[in-house]
Amino acid sequence: MGMDRLLPTPEAYDLLDLARELADRELAPRVDDFESRGEFPREVIRTLGRAGLLGLPYPEEDGGAGQPYEVYLQVVEILASRWLAVAEAVSVHTLSCHPVYAHGGEQLRKLLPDMLGGELLGAYCLSEPQGGSDAASLTTRAVLDGEAYVVTGTKAWITHAGNADFYNVFCRTGEPGARGISCLLADAGTPGIVPQAPEKTMGLRSSPVAQIAFDGARVPADRLVGEPGAGFRIAMDALDSGRLGIATCAVGLAQAALDYAVAYARDRSQFGRSVLDFQGIRFLLADAATGISAARALVLAAARLKDAGRPYAAEAAKAKLFATDMAMRVTTDAVQVLGGYGYVTDHPVERYMREAKVLQIVEGTNQIQRLVIAKSL
Amino acid sequence: MGMDRLLPTPEAYDLLDLARELADRELAPRVDDFESRGEFPREVIRTLGRAGLLGLPYPEEDGGAGQPYEVYLQVVEILASRWLAVAEAVSVHTLSCHPVYAHGGEQLRKLLPDMLGGELLGAYCLSEPQGGSDAASLTTRAVLDGEAYVVTGTKAWITHAGNADFYNVFCRTGEPGARGISCLLADAGTPGIVPQAPEKTMGLRSSPVAQIAFDGARVPADRLVGEPGAGFRIAMDALDSGRLGIATCAVGLAQAALDYAVAYARDRSQFGRSVLDFQGIRFLLADAATGISAARALVLAAARLKDAGRPYAAEAAKAKLFATDMAMRVTTDAVQVLGGYGYVTDHPVERYMREAKVLQIVEGTNQIQRLVIAKSL
Amino acid sequence: MGMDRLLPTPEAYDLLDLARELADRELAPRVDDFESRGEFPREVIRTLGRAGLLGLPYPEEDGGAGQPYEVYLQVVEILASRWLAVAEAVSVHTLSCHPVYAHGGEQLRKLLPDMLGGELLGAYCLSEPQGGSDAASLTTRAVLDGEAYVVTGTKAWITHAGNADFYNVFCRTGEPGARGISCLLADAGTPGIVPQAPEKTMGLRSSPVAQIAFDGARVPADRLVGEPGAGFRIAMDALDSGRLGIATCAVGLAQAALDYAVAYARDRSQFGRSVLDFQGIRFLLADAATGISAARALVLAAARLKDAGRPYAAEAAKAKLFATDMAMRVTTDAVQVLGGYGYVTDHPVERYMREAKVLQIVEGTNQIQRLVIAKSL
Amino acid sequence: MGMDRLLPTPEAYDLLDLARELADRELAPRVDDFESRGEFPREVIRTLGRAGLLGLPYPEEDGGAGQPYEVYLQVVEILASRWLAVAEAVSVHTLSCHPVYAHGGEQLRKLLPDMLGGELLGAYCLSEPQGGSDAASLTTRAVLDGEAYVVTGTKAWITHAGNADFYNVFCRTGEPGARGISCLLADAGTPGIVPQAPEKTMGLRSSPVAQIAFDGARVPADRLVGEPGAGFRIAMDALDSGRLGIATCAVGLAQAALDYAVAYARDRSQFGRSVLDFQGIRFLLADAATGISAARALVLAAARLKDAGRPYAAEAAKAKLFATDMAMRVTTDAVQVLGGYGYVTDHPVERYMREAKVLQIVEGTNQIQRLVIAKSL
Repeated sequence: MGMDRLLPTPEAYDLLDLARELADRELAPRVDDFESRGEFPREVIRTLGRAGLLGLPYPEEDGGAGQPYEVYLQVVEILASRWLAVAEAVSVHTLSCHPVYAHGGEQLRKLLPDMLGGELLGAYCLSEPQGGSDAASLTTRAVLDGEAYVVTGTKAWITHAGNADFYNVFCRTGEPGARGISCLLADAGTPGIVPQAPEKTMGLRSSPVAQIAFDGARVPADRLVGEPGAGFRIAMDALDSGRLGIATCAVGLAQAALDYAVAYARDRSQFGRSVLDFQGIRFLLADAATGISAARALVLAAARLKDAGRPYAAEAAKAKLFATDMAMRVTTDAVQVLGGYGYVTDHPVERYMREAKVLQIVEGTNQIQRLVIAKSL
Repeated sequence: MGMDRLLPTPEAYDLLDLARELADRELAPRVDDFESRGEFPREVIRTLGRAGLLGLPYPEEDGGAGQPYEVYLQVVEILASRWLAVAEAVSVHTLSCHPVYAHGGEQLRKLLPDMLGGELLGAYCLSEPQGGSDAASLTTRAVLDGEAYVVTGTKAWITHAGNADFYNVFCRTGEPGARGISCLLADAGTPGIVPQAPEKTMGLRSSPVAQIAFDGARVPADRLVGEPGAGFRIAMDALDSGRLGIATCAVGLAQAALDYAVAYARDRSQFGRSVLDFQGIRFLLADAATGISAARALVLAAARLKDAGRPYAAEAAKAKLFATDMAMRVTTDAVQVLGGYGYVTDHPVERYMREAKVLQIVEGTNQIQRLVIAKSL
Repeated sequence: MGMDRLLPTPEAYDLLDLARELADRELAPRVDDFESRGEFPREVIRTLGRAGLLGLPYPEEDGGAGQPYEVYLQVVEILASRWLAVAEAVSVHTLSCHPVYAHGGEQLRKLLPDMLGGELLGAYCLSEPQGGSDAASLTTRAVLDGEAYVVTGTKAWITHAGNADFYNVFCRTGEPGARGISCLLADAGTPGIVPQAPEKTMGLRSSPVAQIAFDGARVPADRLVGEPGAGFRIAMDALDSGRLGIATCAVGLAQAALDYAVAYARDRSQFGRSVLDFQGIRFLLADAATGISAARALVLAAARLKDAGRPYAAEAAKAKLFATDMAMRVTTDAVQVLGGYGYVTDHPVERYMREAKVLQIVEGTNQIQRLVIAKSL
Repeated sequence: MGMDRLLPTPEAYDLLDLARELADRELAPRVDDFESRGEFPREVIRTLGRAGLLGLPYPEEDGGAGQPYEVYLQVVEILASRWLAVAEAVSVHTLSCHPVYAHGGEQLRKLLPDMLGGELLGAYCLSEPQGGSDAASLTTRAVLDGEAYVVTGTKAWITHAGNADFYNVFCRTGEPGARGISCLLADAGTPGIVPQAPEKTMGLRSSPVAQIAFDGARVPADRLVGEPGAGFRIAMDALDSGRLGIATCAVGLAQAALDYAVAYARDRSQFGRSVLDFQGIRFLLADAATGISAARALVLAAARLKDAGRPYAAEAAKAKLFATDMAMRVTTDAVQVLGGYGYVTDHPVERYMREAKVLQIVEGTNQIQRLVIAKSL
């Protein structure tokens, strides 16, 4: 791509080289196959974990790599340019470790090395079928019965449902509203936790999402993360960094689409000239490149705020909004550059376009992002 | 939809009612099934033909319905709002009858009643794998050998390939460039005409497109449409009306997406209110409705120019460009209104979005439309 | 412009020719001078009135020309392409005659010939400094005192303030809210009606707008238009057609900008070629032409609904929203085509751009239009 | 504005505080007056120079402040949020010092302290009336005659024309094309250098631009900057940083517009609620804030590349394109938020909108930027 990145340390350059190498060697050759079969690439994730890419932003003493978010996000971006589902898995998993890392007691934190090493894959059970963006009104209940919480209800849109080893389950343990919500770390094997059939999605099929039925599942009381009633705050905590994860995925996806379209346009000729020679196409590609650079810069600016311990929620929302809208536009235009060839599965751009759409929706729709941003004004 | 159309005759109101009835009864219940199986609905097309909807803009004496283009296009729009592939089939078929109707000799014109009645389904073989938008450089050759043209070459992106009964084949019979091209009307059953495996497309799967190999196919010399060398002009002739066909498909598709999104938003509640009560969503829907109304008005204005015998090529290009860009935007936004539910196949909006993309590409990419428009300035 | 209009009658073609002739002869040579001096061209308006262009959509028996709205709006469009302020004056004046025409008693209707002939110029006093888009909350009071209403309050943003001969004054005669509002037809010379200094506007300076102070002005009771309390309905009545007036102004303005930009690009050369040869510029101009055609078609489609006696409020709101947003974009881009030359007053495009902005605001901001449209869904 | 900037040094925070203080104290109170009179604020520039803000990115040993571009640009942004013409003057002046700094011989470099201190105001004479974006074809000639070059020709669009103390004059000393161009540093007082009447521009009136006639002006031969024939390269050299200057101006201008619109919307009520409570307005403002943050991040990312000695031309072009298109949109929308009040000179937003337009044009139109970007793909 010839893009010239400024990174904070020599180690970061090495990390990005490693990410590129793994992306080319482990991801690129497998993506089409897994996508067409709708299968989650558990082994690929394990490989990334063993390479140290699953705990990047956590301290080394917990089993992480002690990298700034700025660097972590660029690793995810590179993975996303080869296989969005894998990049998203890394982002979701990284997020899933956060509640235990930030709020877990000593006992729970003992799990961190396996979590950050990728032996234990995590998931996030927050949304519900009716709830949509309104997390505070969730209805899944957890009732303390002796040594365990009995969890009943249905969670929806769960990435890694059926593939995860542990779930952060947000459930109501008290009063209605945000303050009555707690967070439990449930083993995936717990009886009564029943992942449903995967949703039939337009794209991102190698990352199946599904509902999970909690049918009186007993989660030991010592699996409570943080205080009772702290669940909503814990959930919101992770949201901002989750948005940066999606935003950087969008940047990587759009970059892949642009790179492919440029290469295609260079090789393809029409009316006796390379398609890349037509100014109408050049302008389209220039606009795409500009959007990508702006999105990347915005994501990294927000990340540096986070790394510096500054408030960054509004900037993360802007990054998510801007990067995903940009990716939708760039991938749609990349299909256009290929014309009819862009519309068939022989080329990856139609997949990019189908994948881009989900990014405008997850971790808070782009309408929700605008509300977050407006509140900051 | 509550839209208030002004039509030129009482008969036109009846025709649109008929179209709505058939769309609801014959199209709507079948679309998902045929789309998922990627099967062309030949019987549905026959039903439309028997109802008189396949020859609308042709004179009654040739077996048509003598309707103005303005009315014909609104029928196609209504079909497109239920099943894009069927509407496109009607548009392509109607186009396919045009060479014989406008340029065919007495003998060929005897086929018109069966063509316009839908017993014989037509197709258009113009594009080639390398040619893209540059039709004048096509390389499929037809060499006169006794009483027949021997046709050799490969055509690409052929709608109805393998399902059509006759093909308008544009092939080189003379010098390089536009003047060396002729048009043959070939029976689909001709030995040496070999449809290839259908392309794996992002959408519109019940309207398979494929390459067709012409492997020394012998087409009788009396199947020449118009003069030798008239082929390019014949092809271009049909382009303008073909663009109106695609444009009206885009209007119907976008209207379906808007209607679905409005109904969903009305029923779905978030934060204790109907989603339709949020001004952010209302504005999005208002913009969609505005784009649809503008596109429809533009399509019909171009159609009235055609009906009045005025030049309308530039206006048709504008209609194609505007309506299909609009449909891409509106369908993408309709998915957004449904959030996660928009991304799964339980709701049709993800299909609409996948279908919209192809409309920006066919009958001349929207980049080609801009060139046509610019030339008129 | 080479645009090919379809008109309903031969008379309409004549009318548009007349409009073009007057626009070229009476408007074009004067606009710069009046704009730079900020002077209202009262005489030009009188000339248009004598040519019969001020009462076009009203019946001939009342002194109008009995033209459909579809034709009237195209006349206004042509005027707008030469001098926006004059076109807007025609639109505002035509609107100002509507209350008396539609709701006035026999006595008031005797004024119609002079109104429609342009001897008496009209204005509309609805907005107030605090009210903005919320007309129902207006506070100007009219109290019946013997034979006259005593009017007290301040009206804002009054087009023709200080130049009109009569004002439609909307004022509160009863309860709070929409039902307490009445409409009075006040002579401009009434003591206590005091136009204030004109606003210093970004553009449209030859159509001064100003506040009008009503300082106990006595308006004879027989100048009540319609019933007491009917004022809000009367005001809303005119809104829809007023929106079409602004929309058609936007179309004319954008067409003028495009025509100028095309001519400039053709003559100007860069890097040894005509600027019009660069595909980047061609695409920009093609997009502009497309937007203009779509807006014009949408305006006329709404007008035909009105002419046919069908509901057209939502379509008028769409036309206003779409046409004025389009004009803002097209005029901004026209400046761009001229580069530095577009930014100086030697060329009219910078004026067009300044003028376009006001169209997004008047007769209901484009935000208000979206609310109207959304309500219709 | 509550924006949280990360700066590289404590000194940079102080510098930005100083810039804010000067912007509030020296710029804000004067801008309206100077704009309405179209007068260049020479004294204000001198004040900034004495405060050390005119030579920020140059080494301290030459009289500069040794600041990274990243910091310098944020100072310019802050100035632009109060008075665009002053910020542009700082940017242009800083650029004007570059040829002598980077290419000047020992003798010329002695001028640097006075240049960087702001005692000598600089200008850039590159464009010509016919040349537009095609600098390599310039026709102003300089012929060596004894100890001096005799310069003849006309330069156009010269910022600081008539106000500068020195001009970088790019003129043809050799063959046609880029290699025949040299750069002379001419004293403004040189006989035969005749600034013409200022252009009548749509905005930015306190920064008059004008043509300058060179009528046999004799510039001493030792005022040649760099080698003969090096002029084009010198000119291009400065272009990239000049683009960053314009881009940061756009960011500051848009921020000012957003801040004003937010404050206005908060205070203004409609339909009984603060305008800021309407989601339609909130979304508009959120989009504006997002665009501003993205543009700022993109500008600073490009600046950091420059500061690190990496290639940054393509990123500078992206920053210029993106930031100025964004500013055009945001300022136009800011007027919209104020409604009618936005269209009058009582509020600054109409000025912002008029000013934004010029930024899309100068230092290479945004069409030229797209060509630069496309070349990098």
